Amino acid sequence: MRKIVECVPNFSEGRNQTVIEEIVSTLRGIDGCNLVNYEADQDYNRTVVTLIGEPEAIIKALLPFVGKVLELIDMNVQKGEHPRMGAVDVIPFIPIEHVTMEECVEYANQVGQLIYDTYQIPSFLYANAATKKDRVKLPTIRKGEFEGMKDKIKDPHWTPDFGTNEIHPTFGVIGIGARIPLIAYNIDLDTTDMNPAKQISRAIRFSSGGFRHIQAGPVYLESRKHTQVTMNILDYTKNPIYRILETVKMEAAQYHVDVPSCELVGLIPKQALLQSLKYYFKRYNQPWDADMSFDDIVKYSIQYIGFRDFDRLKIIEANIN
Amino acid sequence: MRKIVECVPNFSEGRNQTVIEEIVSTLRGIDGCNLVNYEADQDYNRTVVTLIGEPEAIIKALLPFVGKVLELIDMNVQKGEHPRMGAVDVIPFIPIEHVTMEECVEYANQVGQLIYDTYQIPSFLYANAATKKDRVKLPTIRKGEFEGMKDKIKDPHWTPDFGTNEIHPTFGVIGIGARIPLIAYNIDLDTTDMNPAKQISRAIRFSSGGFRHIQAGPVYLESRKHTQVTMNILDYTKNPIYRILETVKMEAAQYHVDVPSCELVGLIPKQALLQSLKYYFKRYNQPWDADMSFDDIVKYSIQYIGFRDFDRLKIIEANIN
Repeated sequence: MRKIVECVPNFSEGRNQTVIEEIVSTLRGIDGCNLVNYEADQDYNRTVVTLIGEPEAIIKALLPFVGKVLELIDMNVQKGEHPRMGAVDVIPFIPIEHVTMEECVEYANQVGQLIYDTYQIPSFLYANAATKKDRVKLPTIRKGEFEGMKDKIKDPHWTPDFGTNEIHPTFGVIGIGARIPLIAYNIDLDTTDMNPAKQISRAIRFSSGGFRHIQAGPVYLESRKHTQVTMNILDYTKNPIYRILETVKMEAAQYHVDVPSCELVGLIPKQALLQSLKYYFKRYNQPWDADMSFDDIVKYSIQYIGFRDFDRLKIIEANIN
Repeated sequence: MRKIVECVPNFSEGRNQTVIEEIVSTLRGIDGCNLVNYEADQDYNRTVVTLIGEPEAIIKALLPFVGKVLELIDMNVQKGEHPRMGAVDVIPFIPIEHVTMEECVEYANQVGQLIYDTYQIPSFLYANAATKKDRVKLPTIRKGEFEGMKDKIKDPHWTPDFGTNEIHPTFGVIGIGARIPLIAYNIDLDTTDMNPAKQISRAIRFSSGGFRHIQAGPVYLESRKHTQVTMNILDYTKNPIYRILETVKMEAAQYHVDVPSCELVGLIPKQALLQSLKYYFKRYNQPWDADMSFDDIVKYSIQYIGFRDFDRLKIIEANIN
């Protein structure tokens, strides 16, 4: 049985189309490694690449990719809304089929070693691959960002898992991890006022008392002229999309702000969509069909959850083979 | 300036009116100690007493109260829906005016020592008074309940803060604590089916991934013939009532179950009501009045939050003097 993993490298360029294309082109046409998509965000100045395929093929593809990023991005001049500590900021491995989490931890270690040996770029292992308790959460590692990492990495407590106590002068450092599928989910607020997004983020995120598996923050989308509650759902089995979305709508009602749409950055497991669709089907008395097609899942997800820029290839399982 | 604390002893009898009255009568007519109310719950077989007043007066009043409970309740035959480890199950001290949390910790210690010296009833300090990390949360201490405590207390890790490694044979043990005002809040579900209450409790409580400061569980109220989500809100500043109530309504919608009303067990700080009323005022475009009277707070709390069995004396601040 073929092992299948998802790998979602994020790099710190989301504006210059030529640069983005040149970097992504290193990941095209590789046997056993499906370049599912890449999403450049101008406001974040960041591109999220999604690869699905065989672990060996993906590990092999990552080296020239990192090499090209090293050549084209200088973090000393990079600016964007999204926090970042490296030109490639994170490389997470996610088990999809016939692969254990332990194997994904092993892949993260292999990649960290290979990247340091080849380019002398240091990296920190995070999430299930973390070697220390305060490296489990990426924001803890990334705190201080590229600019602060020069000093932070000299602290013996922050010696990287691969590399010495010095960042790469133009690239910074990478977070390499293994984790369950995380959902990067953003909810649109039909206002330019940042206050509702700030208050609502505070209401739903764990760090200020909200849902246990939610990291969230406010953001203004210059290109779309409205604000957003941007979040990671770290465990969608416990904090389903519908619950967060409906809570955000309820909170938004006090500001008289509409919640017209929402979006995913990267992919989502089929199960996460079914779980939320089931809520709406039950609530609106529609007979449930657990075996619905990918096309039906897409149709109903747009209808009930209100996704924009959504199609079947956003579903992880629709991208295998 | 007069120091004022709230003290909320819970004892394990909620059915026998004669016994309840005899116990509560020990707390009547004491100078400096206002017996605000006592609520007997038949299903829980438990009575929650609320005292507000000067710390010395309350501490002095607790001794004959515990003595009377010792005389009238035998935990070997007591049964009820609410988990319990002693005939007086808990005695928390809550700072209200001109008192620090540190002083309340000191009162908890005084009471624990006095009760052991007088009656040889052991006690565990909890919440801000806890002496070990796993004694902060009451449910951790209480796990196993009266029946299991006989063995649990023999474990050196569970040596009580006052007393030896043996429970009192008929009384059990007491949890004595100091904490911020906790809101004991129950939301009614208009159904006899336990499943919605179970699923909704799971959705909102921290232990299964929900809101950070919520402990919740399902319960069937035999006397009222419907189920309830019963909860403690451990920090109402972070997890306001309106947010939990609206989330419960949203979850209940998938079961087509109405949420007709809710109730408080014990008192609530004025600020906790104002905070939630503000949400509804804003949402329904009603001009906000931060200085509204206790009577207005009551009227609007019933109208917007749907409290039943609610009056001004449920508000802590309405009971001072």
